[in-house]
Amino acid sequence: MTRLLYALAGADKARQFSPHVWKTVMSLAHKGLDYETMPVGFTEISGIENGGTATVPLLRDGDKLVSDSFAIALYLDEAYPDRPSLFGGQGGQAMARFIESWSQSTLHMAITRIAILDIHNLLGEADQAYFRRSREERLGASLEEIAAAGRAEIETFAKKLQPLRNMLKTQPFIGGESPLFPDYIVFGALQWLRITAGTTVLEADDPVALWFARCLDLHGGIGRRVTAG
Amino acid sequence: MTRLLYALAGADKARQFSPHVWKTVMSLAHKGLDYETMPVGFTEISGIENGGTATVPLLRDGDKLVSDSFAIALYLDEAYPDRPSLFGGQGGQAMARFIESWSQSTLHMAITRIAILDIHNLLGEADQAYFRRSREERLGASLEEIAAAGRAEIETFAKKLQPLRNMLKTQPFIGGESPLFPDYIVFGALQWLRITAGTTVLEADDPVALWFARCLDLHGGIGRRVTAG
Repeated sequence: MTRLLYALAGADKARQFSPHVWKTVMSLAHKGLDYETMPVGFTEISGIENGGTATVPLLRDGDKLVSDSFAIALYLDEAYPDRPSLFGGQGGQAMARFIESWSQSTLHMAITRIAILDIHNLLGEADQAYFRRSREERLGASLEEIAAAGRAEIETFAKKLQPLRNMLKTQPFIGGESPLFPDYIVFGALQWLRITAGTTVLEADDPVALWFARCLDLHGGIGRRVTAG
Repeated sequence: MTRLLYALAGADKARQFSPHVWKTVMSLAHKGLDYETMPVGFTEISGIENGGTATVPLLRDGDKLVSDSFAIALYLDEAYPDRPSLFGGQGGQAMARFIESWSQSTLHMAITRIAILDIHNLLGEADQAYFRRSREERLGASLEEIAAAGRAEIETFAKKLQPLRNMLKTQPFIGGESPLFPDYIVFGALQWLRITAGTTVLEADDPVALWFARCLDLHGGIGRRVTAG
């Protein structure tokens, strides 16, 4: 086995929750590529591959080391051009950057606020200390204060997904008739929320909830291998 | 000349302000295709091409009639495959739908509120009556009430563009190194605001303002042919 994916995990190594790692898990499944998963905690990242990365996902593919989910997706399309494309052409590669930026700036901070204590609680002891210190410093508030702000985010979360909801009137995936990398970008965010807090933020018949369920079913239901939090 | 673009105009036929028509003006310029423009008022649309459309843009290309700016862009790429692509592949065609949906749901209502009285005031008399009646019915308030709500939108407008602002850190256009149809989608919205209200909603050094200026400069500066409102 030459392919190895380093994936962020909780104290229970099976609870892999990183939105960015999920983008890569889906990308590898989309390409039909086998790999082994190496679960790591936050405080273990700096020690992997001789300090080769500050973040996960990190993919080792033979001699090649690639970090960052977008860079990995680009790498996979270049290295395995005969497998199904993740972008569907140059235009898709560029536009996926907008969708990444939208997901990051619209969804990620809200999910951080909603799920921050759940994330903390699923970590091992050393990671809990690191997570509390780094997030409290970055966000300028205690985890408990951030979580309190998160309760208001639950109410307004569904509205943030209006662009996706409207788009779903004309096609079943952001990639069109079938998914492409930007589907995995937005899926990664909602999967992160599902695995950590498990909060219901969408009505069952919301077109976005139905799209998310379709994504969970993809590639042999790989997204369901980790249960909801 | 076999190509004819029907474009929404004010009492001054040179003041073509429709965001959707601007998407098509930029698309035709991108493809390097000549055409004549036929300016029409709101109340004239139902009479053009034997009632062939309820909305503009409407493009006549020889025997072919195409309405809707997205459908026109798809048509142009199919009919003129040797000219520069507007989508850069199948993936781009699909992802552009998300960006259209984002622009429509995030920017258009805010611009409607900010510019509604300016739009009204630039119309001819019959169009003014139609516009007031149809918009007041659709929005459930008088134009003056909507405009009052628009003043609050001015303050928060720049923030709505955060996904584009963040993306511009990695590439100069949504299409990547050069523009594609989704650039024209978002350009159309801001051009609509520029021509009607002329409100300054972005700081001069905002990356989005710099991108918008780059778009105005494209294709011989075609976007600057209509002055700011």
